[in-house]
Amino acid sequence: MVDPGIRSIEVERLRGESERASERDDVAVEEPLEIRIAGETLAITMRTPGHDRELVLGFLVAEGVIASMADVLGVTHCGRVGAEARGNTIDVTLVAGVKPPIDPETGLFTRRGTLTTSACGVCGRRSIDDLIERIEPLASTGHRIARSIVAAAVRGLRSRQPIFGQTGGCHAASIVDFRGQVVATYEDVGRHNAVDKAVGSRVQAGELPCSDNLLVVSGRSSFEIVQKAFSAGIPVVASVSAPSSLAIDLAHRANITLAGFVRDEAMTVYTSPERIVS
Amino acid sequence: MVDPGIRSIEVERLRGESERASERDDVAVEEPLEIRIAGETLAITMRTPGHDRELVLGFLVAEGVIASMADVLGVTHCGRVGAEARGNTIDVTLVAGVKPPIDPETGLFTRRGTLTTSACGVCGRRSIDDLIERIEPLASTGHRIARSIVAAAVRGLRSRQPIFGQTGGCHAASIVDFRGQVVATYEDVGRHNAVDKAVGSRVQAGELPCSDNLLVVSGRSSFEIVQKAFSAGIPVVASVSAPSSLAIDLAHRANITLAGFVRDEAMTVYTSPERIVS
Repeated sequence: MVDPGIRSIEVERLRGESERASERDDVAVEEPLEIRIAGETLAITMRTPGHDRELVLGFLVAEGVIASMADVLGVTHCGRVGAEARGNTIDVTLVAGVKPPIDPETGLFTRRGTLTTSACGVCGRRSIDDLIERIEPLASTGHRIARSIVAAAVRGLRSRQPIFGQTGGCHAASIVDFRGQVVATYEDVGRHNAVDKAVGSRVQAGELPCSDNLLVVSGRSSFEIVQKAFSAGIPVVASVSAPSSLAIDLAHRANITLAGFVRDEAMTVYTSPERIVS
Repeated sequence: MVDPGIRSIEVERLRGESERASERDDVAVEEPLEIRIAGETLAITMRTPGHDRELVLGFLVAEGVIASMADVLGVTHCGRVGAEARGNTIDVTLVAGVKPPIDPETGLFTRRGTLTTSACGVCGRRSIDDLIERIEPLASTGHRIARSIVAAAVRGLRSRQPIFGQTGGCHAASIVDFRGQVVATYEDVGRHNAVDKAVGSRVQAGELPCSDNLLVVSGRSSFEIVQKAFSAGIPVVASVSAPSSLAIDLAHRANITLAGFVRDEAMTVYTSPERIVS
C-alpha cells in the first residue's frame, strides 16, 4: 500500500561541479485539513495525510474543547473522496452539552478564548501571561524517569520515522512511558500536528491524561508544543533541539520537565530537573 | 547592547552517566506580535523580537495587502513599552485607497480571501488549488544563477546566524542576489517570520520585486515559504533541507526554481532547474 504521506516525483539531481541527472525522488506530502465541528469550520491546518482522526482528537484536547472520547459522538471525513474534498475535511460531532468554543459576540469559533485572527493559533502576550498564570500546574507525583530512558527515547525516535527516512523532510513526535515503552509515534510535516496525532491516539485509547509519560519531538520545543503536552497531562518534554523562552516560561509554571539538546546521556534541563534521575 | 532575541537563563546540565551542574545558558526569545491595521487586529504571530517593522511589511506583502512602501503611511509600535504591551503590538496605517482585507459579510479581516479560522494561515485545499491556478507565473527573464553561488549562499547562511550561534534554536532566511551578494539576513524562531523580515527589509529599501534574487531558508521549504517568495517576486528558493509536496506544486506553477538538500555543489532541484547553470 502506498503511504498517503509520501509522493514520488521527478527531480533533477546536481552532483559535483557539473553533473546533472533526472531521477525520481520521494517527498513528504503537505495538504490542508479543514477541521469542522457540526459543519462549522474551526481550523485549517497544513498536515501530512494519514491519521487525521488522531490529529483532530489531539487538536481538540489542546484547544480545551474535549477531555476524552466521552465528549465525542463521531469524527468523520466528509465530501466525496477523489472529488473536491480529497478527504481534506473532517467533521466532529460533540456530545450534547459539550460546548464548542463560540464567541458570544461574533458567533464565531474562538481558540483558547481568543478570536482566531492568528497566524499561529495563540493569543497575544498579555493573554499568554494570563494563560500561564491561570494554569493549574501538573501534580508532583514523585514519579521519576531515568536519564538513560530519556536518552534512549530521543535517540530511538529516528528509527520510528519511515516518512522521514524516505523523504528527509518530516517531523515526528513520540509518547514514551517512564519505563521506556513507546506508546505512540506519528509523523507530520508540521511539528504541532505530529504532537496532536500522538496525543489523539491516546485519547482514542482512553489513556488521557498521559501521566508518567514523556513527549519526544523531532524539532524545537516552542510554546505551543509545551502547551499541547500540558493539555494532555504529559509531565516531561524532550528534544534533540532547543526550546524557546516562552516554552520554558510555560513549562516552569506548568511543572513540566523540559529537556533540550538530548544527545545520549548529555542534555540540558530547563525546568523541573528533579524528575530526571541519576 | 543586549540582543532582544536572546535571553540568559539558569539550566541544569547533565553530562555522562551521572554528572549534573547548574549553569547559565542562552535561549532564543519567542514572544507574540499582534499586527494591527488602523487599530484592528489582523494577525498574531509568535516571533523573536527585533525587526518587527520588517516582519510586518514582509507579512503584508505575502498577504497581498501592500505592494510597496507607497501603500504604507506608517508602522508604529503601540502601547507603553514595559507595561502591558512590551512592544508586542504594532499598528500599520495604510494610504487611503489601499484596502485592508475585510470580509464584507462579517466585517472581519480575511487572509488571502479566506476568513482566518486557521491554525496555519492558509485556506483549504480547494482554495489552495484555486490560488495555485490563478497565479500569474513569474516571468522567465532568461537570467541564470551559478550552481556555485547557490551552494555558497546556503553554506554561508550558518555564519550569518548570531542568535542560532548563541542558542542553537533559531531559524534564518537570507536574500542573496544572483552574483552572490547577500542583501538581507534575518533570524526568528519562526521560519515564516524570518522570511517576512528579509522580504520586509527589501520593501523598506524599495527593492521589490526581488527579481534575480535567491531566498535561502534554514529549514524545510513548505507551501507558505514558497508563497512568500512568490509574493516578493523571488525566482529561486534554496535550502539545506527538504520541500513539501505542496511547496513543489506551487513552485512549479509559479515558475520558481526550488532546490533542496543543498550541500556544497550537490543539490536536488524540484522545479525549473534550467535557472541554475553549470
